[in-house]
Amino acid sequence: MKVYLTRRERFNAAHKLWVEDWTEEKNREVFGKCCNKNWHGHNYDLFITVKGTPDPITGFIMNVKELSTIIKERIIEKLDHSNMNLDVDFIPKGMQPTTENLVVLIWKELEATIKEQGGELHCVKLYETENIFAEYYGE
Amino acid sequence: MKVYLTRRERFNAAHKLWVEDWTEEKNREVFGKCCNKNWHGHNYDLFITVKGTPDPITGFIMNVKELSTIIKERIIEKLDHSNMNLDVDFIPKGMQPTTENLVVLIWKELEATIKEQGGELHCVKLYETENIFAEYYGE
Amino acid sequence: MKVYLTRRERFNAAHKLWVEDWTEEKNREVFGKCCNKNWHGHNYDLFITVKGTPDPITGFIMNVKELSTIIKERIIEKLDHSNMNLDVDFIPKGMQPTTENLVVLIWKELEATIKEQGGELHCVKLYETENIFAEYYGE
Amino acid sequence: MKVYLTRRERFNAAHKLWVEDWTEEKNREVFGKCCNKNWHGHNYDLFITVKGTPDPITGFIMNVKELSTIIKERIIEKLDHSNMNLDVDFIPKGMQPTTENLVVLIWKELEATIKEQGGELHCVKLYETENIFAEYYGE
Amino acid sequence: MKVYLTRRERFNAAHKLWVEDWTEEKNREVFGKCCNKNWHGHNYDLFITVKGTPDPITGFIMNVKELSTIIKERIIEKLDHSNMNLDVDFIPKGMQPTTENLVVLIWKELEATIKEQGGELHCVKLYETENIFAEYYGE
Amino acid sequence: MKVYLTRRERFNAAHKLWVEDWTEEKNREVFGKCCNKNWHGHNYDLFITVKGTPDPITGFIMNVKELSTIIKERIIEKLDHSNMNLDVDFIPKGMQPTTENLVVLIWKELEATIKEQGGELHCVKLYETENIFAEYYGE
Repeated sequence: MKVYLTRRERFNAAHKLWVEDWTEEKNREVFGKCCNKNWHGHNYDLFITVKGTPDPITGFIMNVKELSTIIKERIIEKLDHSNMNLDVDFIPKGMQPTTENLVVLIWKELEATIKEQGGELHCVKLYETENIFAEYYGE
Repeated sequence: MKVYLTRRERFNAAHKLWVEDWTEEKNREVFGKCCNKNWHGHNYDLFITVKGTPDPITGFIMNVKELSTIIKERIIEKLDHSNMNLDVDFIPKGMQPTTENLVVLIWKELEATIKEQGGELHCVKLYETENIFAEYYGE
Repeated sequence: MKVYLTRRERFNAAHKLWVEDWTEEKNREVFGKCCNKNWHGHNYDLFITVKGTPDPITGFIMNVKELSTIIKERIIEKLDHSNMNLDVDFIPKGMQPTTENLVVLIWKELEATIKEQGGELHCVKLYETENIFAEYYGE
Repeated sequence: MKVYLTRRERFNAAHKLWVEDWTEEKNREVFGKCCNKNWHGHNYDLFITVKGTPDPITGFIMNVKELSTIIKERIIEKLDHSNMNLDVDFIPKGMQPTTENLVVLIWKELEATIKEQGGELHCVKLYETENIFAEYYGE
Repeated sequence: MKVYLTRRERFNAAHKLWVEDWTEEKNREVFGKCCNKNWHGHNYDLFITVKGTPDPITGFIMNVKELSTIIKERIIEKLDHSNMNLDVDFIPKGMQPTTENLVVLIWKELEATIKEQGGELHCVKLYETENIFAEYYGE
Repeated sequence: MKVYLTRRERFNAAHKLWVEDWTEEKNREVFGKCCNKNWHGHNYDLFITVKGTPDPITGFIMNVKELSTIIKERIIEKLDHSNMNLDVDFIPKGMQPTTENLVVLIWKELEATIKEQGGELHCVKLYETENIFAEYYGE
């Protein structure tokens, strides 16, 4: 019996989309206003889903407070109020901090730690605006 | 051709998380403030998804008003303004009314009735707060 | 590595649910207030999900501005401020514009165009109200 | 001591903005897509605010269930699934059913009935979309 | 120059509406399902608004982190995961914990402390559900 | 007869809160993580309210498309995807781009232009996150 449990956390960050090897013109063509050299930013909504069988005594798949603590320590403390192109150790320099890349990078940061706590990561979902979000299921 | 149709219903209820065989200290350690002996409560948002092929004449998988009526009669009338530890016949006494347990219990209440009405239950999703929700797909 | 990217667009439209071959009484019985001969309407929220591997340079599965442009040109310009029973070329006359039928019709409008742009359509999700939505995954 | 209590109700309706004395060109210029002769529609969110002093025994300004009943009987039953240009007795024929006009018309429908029940109407607020709303305070 | 600044905080609590001097029948008639003797509960959204002139150096009316700390210490720690009829020192025993009464009680708890921190309380707004909220402006 | 009409627009921007004359320590103490030298950012929700009497023919206080155009040309084009400390002509250099300062600056940008179009500005409201917003009424 598989039940899925999701926890939302939030962070606010700056970024820009900019390929160093490209001209400004090409960056502008591909990334539009997202390539502003002085950065812009977003409020991000992050949804982390774990799956498992509810414990017969506690009714928990995983203690949601522990899940929240893991997400905060591994992800939110690094991303919140950061510049994602410059400040975050798990985002490779030069990799564009798009929503698509971020869900994969966040998955890699969380998967092992959640497993150590007895959980199994199922999905990383990230809203960049109310109109755009990405999801990654680990494969 | 499978289309998925979801109906939201809402209920407000009290509960606590408390294992009788444990000390207060252990309950506090595992459940935190959720073990307050005087209860606390939530506004729950329930999303019921059925699947099927749209009828060529009505364009319906299942009449959403009938689906709503089933959810209200089987679930909302029992849970709304209830104490989920004490008042609800389909929640076994002593079972923790966690979001994870609730989605499984609600599935069991709805599956057969929806089938009788020609529908096929696909997912039960329940929000406890804007930050926590659980899902169950029947297996 | 599959990542899923979703773009939301919105439209406002009128419709009614009405089967010509039925009596008014039967229409009323099946469709309730949705069969008002003078129409009613909704604000629709449309979520289009594509899947793919993020490009190693841009970090994009698909340029979300291009995706937005496709959705606007193929879907929103036709549906927004329309009467869906009368005005929309891709909705067959006599087919009920239910949420379930709409997600399938929208899928058919978008699938090929998105493929031409190098994307792969994964899901069409449509909210009719805050309480009702449908999803279609192409099969 | 004045406390303000607000109840939300919802309705879905069709309308168009069209001045009979104008050419189609002028209607198009002023009203844009809202003048589609075949109508369009919206999900409306209606917020009714009453003010008063909480009763020392019940803690109520006004019983919110009674307030809800008044709004449903006087407003929602008439507007929900209606065509607001054709079907609604309290909207004068030829008056444009704009959000601005609707809040004034709804005020007039509610004020006396709420007063009969011991309440005092303070504000009518109406969302047409997530991006547009109007408010009226009775003067 | 007056600018208004609002901070949202949230709490989850149980309560019931029940007048001891009344029969069960009368309680049921006035309070409906809200008088369930085993309690029910809600997720509450609390919006606290202060007013003032932005400081010419910091651009702050009041440091929003300090405002958040005050709200958490004075209100949220007492109300969150509480039974509002039994557990909260600033709610008089026997007073109904209606949304209308709560906004006045919360005002009284916050007004002086906010003034000590150089702020001026303007409004307490409390959502009980997505459909009901109350506001109090101190007079 | 005064009716209030509100239009929402959105922008995404980077900023930091940092007083040049202060030490890093003092900046950190007052602004917390908001003083990160590499910036951070937000999705801002801007609500512009105008007031007036509905025109007897159009039912408009002010054409909401014109209002939207003014907001986009005067505010959104300058703020969207900007760095608010560096890029925006109507934000004085050295002034902190707090939500409180922004609502006053936006008021000044909009008031005259809205008046020229026959409208009267009533309120500028700006959400920085789901938990923080500021309002300004022009005095």
